[in-house]
Order: sequence, then C-alpha cells, then structure tokens
Amino acid sequence: MKRKWKVGILGATGTVGQRFIQLLERHPWFEVADIAASDRSAGKSYQQACPWKISGHMPVYVRKMKVKDCVPNLDCDLVFSGLPSSMAGEVETAFAQAGYAVLSNSKNHRMDEDVPLLVPEINSEHLGLLAIQQKNHHDRAGYIITNPNCSTMALVLALAPLDVAFGIEKIHVVTMQALSGAGYPGVASLDIIDNVIPYIADEEEKVETEPCKILGKFRDGKIMFADFKISAQCHRVNVLDGHLEAVSIALKQRPSLHQFIEALKSYRSLPQELELPSAPQFPVVHVEGLDRPQPRFDREVENGMATVVGRIRPCKVFDFKFDLLGHNTIRGAAGAAILNAELLVKQRLLMARS
Amino acid sequence: MKRKWKVGILGATGTVGQRFIQLLERHPWFEVADIAASDRSAGKSYQQACPWKISGHMPVYVRKMKVKDCVPNLDCDLVFSGLPSSMAGEVETAFAQAGYAVLSNSKNHRMDEDVPLLVPEINSEHLGLLAIQQKNHHDRAGYIITNPNCSTMALVLALAPLDVAFGIEKIHVVTMQALSGAGYPGVASLDIIDNVIPYIADEEEKVETEPCKILGKFRDGKIMFADFKISAQCHRVNVLDGHLEAVSIALKQRPSLHQFIEALKSYRSLPQELELPSAPQFPVVHVEGLDRPQPRFDREVENGMATVVGRIRPCKVFDFKFDLLGHNTIRGAAGAAILNAELLVKQRLLMARS
Amino acid sequence: MKRKWKVGILGATGTVGQRFIQLLERHPWFEVADIAASDRSAGKSYQQACPWKISGHMPVYVRKMKVKDCVPNLDCDLVFSGLPSSMAGEVETAFAQAGYAVLSNSKNHRMDEDVPLLVPEINSEHLGLLAIQQKNHHDRAGYIITNPNCSTMALVLALAPLDVAFGIEKIHVVTMQALSGAGYPGVASLDIIDNVIPYIADEEEKVETEPCKILGKFRDGKIMFADFKISAQCHRVNVLDGHLEAVSIALKQRPSLHQFIEALKSYRSLPQELELPSAPQFPVVHVEGLDRPQPRFDREVENGMATVVGRIRPCKVFDFKFDLLGHNTIRGAAGAAILNAELLVKQRLLMARS
Amino acid sequence: MKRKWKVGILGATGTVGQRFIQLLERHPWFEVADIAASDRSAGKSYQQACPWKISGHMPVYVRKMKVKDCVPNLDCDLVFSGLPSSMAGEVETAFAQAGYAVLSNSKNHRMDEDVPLLVPEINSEHLGLLAIQQKNHHDRAGYIITNPNCSTMALVLALAPLDVAFGIEKIHVVTMQALSGAGYPGVASLDIIDNVIPYIADEEEKVETEPCKILGKFRDGKIMFADFKISAQCHRVNVLDGHLEAVSIALKQRPSLHQFIEALKSYRSLPQELELPSAPQFPVVHVEGLDRPQPRFDREVENGMATVVGRIRPCKVFDFKFDLLGHNTIRGAAGAAILNAELLVKQRLLMARS
Repeated sequence: MKRKWKVGILGATGTVGQRFIQLLERHPWFEVADIAASDRSAGKSYQQACPWKISGHMPVYVRKMKVKDCVPNLDCDLVFSGLPSSMAGEVETAFAQAGYAVLSNSKNHRMDEDVPLLVPEINSEHLGLLAIQQKNHHDRAGYIITNPNCSTMALVLALAPLDVAFGIEKIHVVTMQALSGAGYPGVASLDIIDNVIPYIADEEEKVETEPCKILGKFRDGKIMFADFKISAQCHRVNVLDGHLEAVSIALKQRPSLHQFIEALKSYRSLPQELELPSAPQFPVVHVEGLDRPQPRFDREVENGMATVVGRIRPCKVFDFKFDLLGHNTIRGAAGAAILNAELLVKQRLLMARS
Repeated sequence: MKRKWKVGILGATGTVGQRFIQLLERHPWFEVADIAASDRSAGKSYQQACPWKISGHMPVYVRKMKVKDCVPNLDCDLVFSGLPSSMAGEVETAFAQAGYAVLSNSKNHRMDEDVPLLVPEINSEHLGLLAIQQKNHHDRAGYIITNPNCSTMALVLALAPLDVAFGIEKIHVVTMQALSGAGYPGVASLDIIDNVIPYIADEEEKVETEPCKILGKFRDGKIMFADFKISAQCHRVNVLDGHLEAVSIALKQRPSLHQFIEALKSYRSLPQELELPSAPQFPVVHVEGLDRPQPRFDREVENGMATVVGRIRPCKVFDFKFDLLGHNTIRGAAGAAILNAELLVKQRLLMARS
Repeated sequence: MKRKWKVGILGATGTVGQRFIQLLERHPWFEVADIAASDRSAGKSYQQACPWKISGHMPVYVRKMKVKDCVPNLDCDLVFSGLPSSMAGEVETAFAQAGYAVLSNSKNHRMDEDVPLLVPEINSEHLGLLAIQQKNHHDRAGYIITNPNCSTMALVLALAPLDVAFGIEKIHVVTMQALSGAGYPGVASLDIIDNVIPYIADEEEKVETEPCKILGKFRDGKIMFADFKISAQCHRVNVLDGHLEAVSIALKQRPSLHQFIEALKSYRSLPQELELPSAPQFPVVHVEGLDRPQPRFDREVENGMATVVGRIRPCKVFDFKFDLLGHNTIRGAAGAAILNAELLVKQRLLMARS
Repeated sequence: MKRKWKVGILGATGTVGQRFIQLLERHPWFEVADIAASDRSAGKSYQQACPWKISGHMPVYVRKMKVKDCVPNLDCDLVFSGLPSSMAGEVETAFAQAGYAVLSNSKNHRMDEDVPLLVPEINSEHLGLLAIQQKNHHDRAGYIITNPNCSTMALVLALAPLDVAFGIEKIHVVTMQALSGAGYPGVASLDIIDNVIPYIADEEEKVETEPCKILGKFRDGKIMFADFKISAQCHRVNVLDGHLEAVSIALKQRPSLHQFIEALKSYRSLPQELELPSAPQFPVVHVEGLDRPQPRFDREVENGMATVVGRIRPCKVFDFKFDLLGHNTIRGAAGAAILNAELLVKQRLLMARS
C-alpha cells in the first residue's frame, strides 16, 4: 500500500466522531484528512469546537485541524459519518452523489432497500447491493454503507454463529445500555444517579428489525430478511461505556450446552481470515466467571471490537440464556464503520478520488 | 384493640432489621418490645450495635434498647425475622417450637411443605397449613410464616391478577436489582460504579420457583404448585433501593391491551377489604409516562408497598411485555412480613403469649 | 389569620420552582395562586410543562394549574422567584414596580445597595432598606428581597453565631456541591460519573462576597459590610442534594473547643422566637460521629432548613476546622425565600394586593 | 544490564499488590519472580486467590504463579510491599533483616528516624540513612525504604518546586479521595452513592506530617524536618481512581502568578535526568481549562506518575490556590515504590542476593 487513504469525518465533534478521531490516530491504512461538523462548530479548530469526553486526552494530530461544513467538498476518498439523524439523511446522500464512499453510523439509511447494513463477519455478500444502489440513484459515483445500531451490533455477532450452526427461531433480549450511547450532553446526571430508565427512544424497533436484515440473504439483487422473531426491552443504566444484554434464545436444532458454547467460542469469519487491522481475533469471546461479563471489566476485551458472552445456561422458557456485552462506541459505532471500510479496501471496492 | 401486640425483631441490626425498626415506629397495632441480633451485637445498645443505613436518622425509641441474643426468651407475642440464612433456619425453628409466631423474611423455610409463603392479596387460604405445621412438629405452639424473596414479591403482585383473569402460561423476567438487597456492607463500591453485575447468588432459582408456590392452590392439606414456567435472569445495578424487572408474559386467554392493563390497575384483594394498616390502596399501580417506572422516582409509591407497572405493550415473542418496580426492603422484605402479621391479627391467628 | 396569602411563583417549572411548589403544598400561611415560567412553558398545564425531578410525585394541587407568562398581572400578593439569572433582573424589577413583594432566589439583585440579602436569623434589621429601595425606584409600591446563594446560605448560618461570640477574622472554605444546584438538565451524566469537577461558574465570587453583606450592619441607610476575608474553592461532586463544605476559620478571640461547639449548638434567633412555620428548631445542628455530616444521611435534618456541622477540631493553620452541610434546594433556595416571606408576615411588611 | 532484577511482591493480592503486578508486566529492569500474601491466599494460584479489580484483565504471566507466605525465603533480590499495616511492620522488618531491599508502600516505617521516606525528585540524599539504618539494626544486610501516603505523594510533587523557588510558609489542603485508596472491598456502595464521607482514618495526620519529613534536609545523619505548617481535611468521594486536592498556600517570597505557574511547569529533577523508566517526563503537569484537573479525564496523564495542577489563581487568605490531582494507586502507591527501586539501581544501592 503506497499511501494511506484519506478519510473525512462527518460529525467529528460528537461522541461517535470523537471515537473515529481516537481510533484512527495510528491506523495503518487510513489518515484523517478533513473533519466536518454542524454550523455551530464549523470554522473553529477542533480543539475549540469539541468538548472531548473520552478518557485520555484529545489526540495531538487533530487539535489544530479546522472543522469544516458538512458539504461534499472535503479533501478525502471516503467519509465516516457520526452525524445525528436530523442531519445524516440528506448530508450522506449528498456525499454519495458527489462520489464519496460513505461509511455511516446513523440510522437514516440502514433500512434502505439498496443500502448494505454491513457486518463483515456476517454478510459481506450484501456488498452486492452497491452496484444496484448506484444505479438506483442516477448512477451515483459514491455509495452509502451503514453499520448497525450499537445494541444490535453486540447482539448479531453472537447470533450469527448460532444461526449458522443451529438455526434461530426466537430471541428475547433485555438491554442495559451505557450513557455514551445517548451522545453528549445526553442523559442528565439528575436523571440517572440511583436510577434506571426503562426506555430509549426508537431503540427497541431497531433491535427488533436490524438483525433480520443483517442475517438475511442476498438473492436476486435483494436482501431476503431472516424470519426469526425478536422482542427487545431497552434500558439506560448508570454506566459510561458498554451495553449489557440479557438474551434468551430458541433454536431450530437443539444443541447441547457444550455445543452451544463451542459454536460461539470458535466463531471466526472473513475479517479474521483477511486479517483486517481492526478485526478482533475472535468476534465472540467467552468469559469464565459466574458473574461476567461486566461492562467496566470486560468492555476493553479485543480492544472493544468483540462481543463478550458469559453465564451461558439452559433456559426454562427458551433453550438457552446468557448475558452479552459490547462496547457501544467502539464496535457498536465508530469501530464498526472502520472495520467496514477495511473490508472495502481488501475487496477493492474503494476508489481514490484524488 | 386494648393494647398493642408486643413484637420482637430477630436480626435487628441488619438491612432488613433496620426497615422493621423504621416501619414499626408508629404502627397502630404493634410495638417493638425486644430486639435481638448476632453475638457481635448482643449486649450493646442498638445505637452502639447498628450502623444505620436508611436515609433519615435512627428512630429515637430504639436507640437505647438493648440488643439480646437470638434465643427464644424474648418478651413478645410474635417475632419478625430478618436473620441471614446462615442463622435463620435453626433460630426460627427454635422460636416456633417455643410458641412464638415467627414472621420470617429469610429463605430457609420458604419452600417447606407445611410453611405458608404468604402474600395476603393472593393466598390467605395457605394459612390452612399452620395447623398441619404445628402437628408435624410435635404440636409446636408457635409457627413459621414466610414472605417471598424481594424480586419474587414485586413480580407476583403483578402476576396474580393476570393469572386470575387470563391464566398464565409462561413468564420471562430480567431483573435489575438494587444494592440494599445485598445487605450491608454488601456490594463493594469498587464493584458497582460504572458497572452492572449479571449475577446474584441463588436469586434466579428463587424467582423461578417461589411464584409457583405462591400462586398455587391449597388442597387436601397441601399446596398444589401453579404450572406455568418462569425463566429469570438477575442483575445488580447501581441503585440504592427498588428492584426493576423487565417482564414478558404469555397467557392462556388473549386479552386486549386495554383489558390487560385494566386487570392490573383494578386489582384489589383481601388486605384492601380488611383495611390492614400497611396495605397499599392498590397493590398494583400503573404509571403513565413512556419512561416509567423508574427506581428513584417511583419506589415510594403507596409507601413502597405496591408494585408499580409501566410501559405495557405487546410483545413479538410472548403476548405482552412491561417493566415493573418494587421497593425491595419495604414490600420486598420488612413491609411484607408486617402485612402478613396484620392479616394474622385480623384472622385471629395470633395469640398473646404474655 | 383569616385567609392565606396568595402567592405566585416565577420560574415555577425549574429546579427551584419545583421546590417552591413542593414546600408550599400545605403551608399554613401561603397558598399558590398563580404560576409563571418562560415562553416555552406558558400556556401549558404545569403537568405538561414541568419535568418533575424531586423524589416523590408532583403535588396534585398544581398539576392542572396553567403556567402563565412572567408579566406582573398575576393574581397574588407576593411572588417567589426561582428565575434563571438571564430573566430575573428585569422581571423581578417589573414585579416590584407593579407593587408585588418579590422574594427572589436569583443572584441579580443580591448585591444591589438597597436590596436586603436577608437571612432572618442574622440580619432582619436589613429590612430597613425596603423604604429606601422604594424611594430610590420612583416610589415603587412593591420591593425586592433576596436570599443568598446556596453555598453561602449553609455557610453563614454557621458563621453568624461565631461572629457574634468571637469575631471572625478569616475563613477558608472548600465546597463539594450537589448536582441539583446546577438546575435541570444541568450537569451531564458523562461529566460527573467517576469524577469531580473543580469549578462552578461565578460560585466562588458569591461565596467570597455575600457573607460580608449578610453579616454587615445596617447604619445610616446603608449596609456596612463585615470586614473578614474569605477564600472559596468550589467543586461539583456526584451527589443529588446537599452541599458539603470544609471550613477553616480564624477568630479574633480564641475560644476553647468546647466554647466553639457550644456557640454553634446553642444558637437560636428571631425565626425561632417568632416560631415562623418554616424555621428550624435549631439553625445549626451538631452531629456526633467521626464521619459526619454526610449529604445523603444528614440533608433532611430539620427538614433541610438547618446547617449541619460536624468534625469540629483545632486547625494547625487557622484556629478551628469543621465540615458543614446544607440542603441546597431547601434552605439554600426555596426554603430560604419562604422563611423570608414568613418574617415579612410577622413584621407586618407584607400588604395584600387584592 | 545482563539480566533483570528478580522482585517479590508482598501483599500481592490486594489493591496495591495488583498495581505492582500490572505495572511490572513489561518492566525493562525488573521481573516478578515470587509473590506472597496473607494465610488466606498462600498456597493458591494467583488466579484463585486474587479478586482482580483493575480495569483490563489480570496479566497472563501471573495467573498460574503460586502465592507464598510472607516469610523471608522468597527467591528475589528485592521486595515491593503492599501489605496492610496490620502485617507490614513485622514482615518488612524480617525481610530487611534477612537481607532484602524492602520497598514499602505501608505506613508502618515511614516515620522511623532511620528510614527514608523517599521521593526521587525531591530527596535522594535521604538515602544516606540506609547505612545508618543497617548499623542501627544489628548490621542488617537489607534495608527498608518507604514511599509516602497517596494524598501526600500528589501534594509533595507540587510543593517541592514551590519550596525551592519561594519557600513555603503554610499550606491548607482539602482532599477529595478516590475509593481505590481504601482497598478492597473497602467502601460499601451503600455508603458512597449519592454521598461524600468527610473522614478517612489517620489520613489527615499523614498529610500533615509526611511532607515535612520528605522536604526535610539530611544533615549529620538525621532528617531535619521542614518547618512549614499544614492543615488537612480529608474526604472520600464517589470516584474510582485519582485523588483531587484543593490547595491554598502561603509563601515566604511572593512570586507573580506567572512565576508561580512557571515554577511548577518547568520542574524537572533527578529521575528525569537519569531517565528512570517509570519517571514522568514532567513531575508536575499544568492543565489548561477552567474546570480542570478532573479525576476521570486527567488521572492517566504521564501514565499516572505525575501530579496534575490547574485552576491556579490568587487566594484572598493565602497567596495562591489551586487544585491538584494524583493517581492514588500508581504514583500514590505502587508506581512510587517502583520508581524508588529504579533509583536504587542507578545509584548502585541494590545488591543481587542470588
């Protein structure tokens, strides 16, 4: 690889944008060439515009960079988007039309028929939608690829090997989600101290529908959604990072407990074969210990790029139940988009604009 | 009622014991006549022995009372037991043999065949076990009555009206439980800040079995357990008081959403008819608001004696799902035992010893 | 007292406004007749307009009341103001000019030369400013009376008896302030979990200047400021309610430790003599216990109307040091204004407008 | 350096012991050869014995190591001690007598006349006490060197350059200390949520005396204590790691604000010259930003080995005031002992036993 790909970040000052900045600091293939955010920030230096909320200090490389407007004249080959949904729809479309590869973390285009909801371990064949997408939109030169909602992401990494091995019938999931998922300022301290909030707007809908697209099959130019049923109940808890999910699952075939655990632990897929720089060594990590996984102690496993599972045991109502944990702003957001971009590089689907 | 009943408290210095002390401060029928605790505390004044952990200060009436040993020579008609399970089994038996009515919050005798697991709204006919219990144990003059585990308690108050109206088939419950449930010192701060712990020893077993006894029928001198299935996943969260539970339920008959909510809201039962002093006006309170119930804002509803339900909606996997909240150290512990004792008074099952 | 005084609340939907609503629910002398807030809320019912953030539910009496604009045509005799400082300056002036007694918790007029910064225990003679104020402002029929900043309030109640008894020379105070002091939404949860913020805008200036006015003397129509020096360092900590302050003090006379404690404990003043309904029995309460006062366990002492002191001991640099605690939204805000209004009633300085 | 020094860890399973394990994982000069702890742990593998409480997982190298008894037959050249004070006194003495260099984090020997309370930036000449110590104790072959209490440590790094440049007269410090300072299980969650505890046993005495020894002069075989006065008020706050301290200081000479800040920022000393592996590049780091330093965002500065200062401003009672932050289990404990050992290596004061 002669030179690094030049990337832009849309929504660079937000919670997800900050993770992009951090995760790309020493990326072997990508370098941040341009950053953009809303009117409020545009024109300022990143240091002035951004209330840095990730532990550790703002990387030096970005401090003096000028925040630009979110219009498609950024000097880069692809853009990562951490835009709020109020802006993402139109802005991302504009960048795709202007020839940029758009790697979006926003919800707006996830369920579009011709937009891949990409998880490299699971559905790289969905990239077949790109040609269709370009054709559908006046032969746009760029394209949009999305990654899942943070709670969905952690969940589907565990569902995929189970679906392959045993066939999924039904899933029941109760989430206990971290505060960073709500952005900044997000949840008021007066609302969450000594408390749990049993509601996150639109979250349950996402968790109940996205997995069926992600685990769907690409046939005849379309995604045939998977046909299992999901019920989700979403909660906000007093945790900084790391979504914990209590999952119960019914399967078409009935494995032993040992087989069930092995299917999860042994799971490896395309990003591992291709040795993508951000790929976890194991997409699903099984932690021993009666009382694991726990957000504070397990969210950094595999640099936050894996789903951590534990407490796997039979369920009196479904077949098995367990807890899983995913880092919501790494694999659940910025890290997922970066891994998607790495796959594009290896699949030669990324084109230099400059 | 000429004079108040004299009550003793076993385990008076612990978390549950402190709630007994607080809730009985101005009780119309009972007065605390004697208090007892482990060797470590016996002989000291309550003030010296007890690290008071309830908001608000230690009631004045108890400060100078002497803590006695847990042996059955207390000067009282009945005892409330908040003993740890390591002590409760033998001590409670000894008190029952010695002629005391024992109202126990401990797990030890809950599943004994001849011991009522009493919830006055639900199964007062289980008190028919008392005569059998006395006969089984060398005609003991006293008896043991237990109340459910804190998570079970909050759950069964909501299950009872649904079972009566529609018949329960299956229940799935994920709990998010408060720290006071672990006693004192209980959970270390280093373990729970910025964290959730997906495990509570023995808790899931209790939640999966106790409801079947509580909602069982008393026939031919025995409890015929209810036959629905329950699956429970229990978590400890960073909340002081109030267990939140995400419940999904499948029913034998299929009500409308409106009928489902009405069955919960309109539920009233024996303690309400008898106007027991600690009875909630409504055992199940329905809170409006997309994001309720919440532990900090709803745990004091009905003085902590009701189960608060909210977010009732259809479930894609079961029939309905909702969140419920119960105050774990009031209705989930001390308050339940006190309500049980109040029922005994009204049913004339309590006998003065002195 | 034939009928209750009719009161209005300005800024009724905010954190302080909510406390006014709560504290006035069953007040013997006052009844809430009208409520007002910013444009955003005006026209709605209180229930619609207000995100209730005090533990326990919104009082029933206020739920259907209509929120009005903050213009001086409210139907009441006096107004309590919990307005943000961006609005308070002009709105309070307008109400005073229109003949209302304005009891303000806002900072805007506190340091005005002709406005009393009233603490009934300390400086009721400052009410002599009212006639001067009315004359200064085109013979306004109403007037403005302010209460101190929340941190100042807790501090001056402890300073007053010490100044009277021994004369204060220097004070050093480090505050650890609760989140409710920042209003709602106030401090983001992502900012305060596992953290302390060593800065609160403008707070140190208030704590360093207000006590000198409060403890000043009213002479020749002016307040002669007290001449001691104060240094303050203010911090925000992860606590819901209750400001804790670490105080060191140098005195003109040098009492024994016993005399020092006695001066604080025995302090009683005008509100106690007049038996004002909201007056604490003791303005300063001394708690025993090596590790007290603590916000969660001591903030409700005297219904939140007293300053709680503890850990009083000699200081190697000053004379004595101790920790004090005050409930920042009760005595530190709404409760202070209500106590001020009660003093006005007793002093016959309140006139019915209707 | 041919081979690494073999080190032992006393109290390896405790909070400080865990930090030793973590910080020594890839140390260039030291390797952990033996670990020891109390009876409860001895004989078990580290994995079995230790409830790992540091974020991130237990290092692989130590998991299978056998925990030994704390008796002086460990296979190593020097020992780091994180023992509780109930054990440290005798055990450390025994190891020193047996010829081990003992680098202790415990309080027991800190104030012994012939034991250095070593801070390499400040008082390396105190190592002159070692020969005296050996002679005093029957010519012991080993010796004991201590590092300061965690709150003292963070403080003295900021005091040293000020004392050199301007001479210190008086110091007033109010600490807000993290929970990890209390060990594990340490502070109960029920005690600290929504709370501050204004007391830490023995802490104020340490903070008021240790700096005078550390900043003292070594003359005629003795430490002449520094003669400034310190007053400390210590608090426990709801923070995992990082002690924040509000400091006010009076100086003998009166610098400008600029000179004061420069003295802190420009401070470099022996460990920086010697390029000791664990030495911070700058022992005192000045953070910009009105509201800094903050524990969660600044405790990792210089890998937790520096004191971070901010909000430096004039004080109305002393000369200057500011907030400082130190990582209590890194530079405030294990990291300090390791840095001390590194100095010993460079000073050729460490002798191989094997």
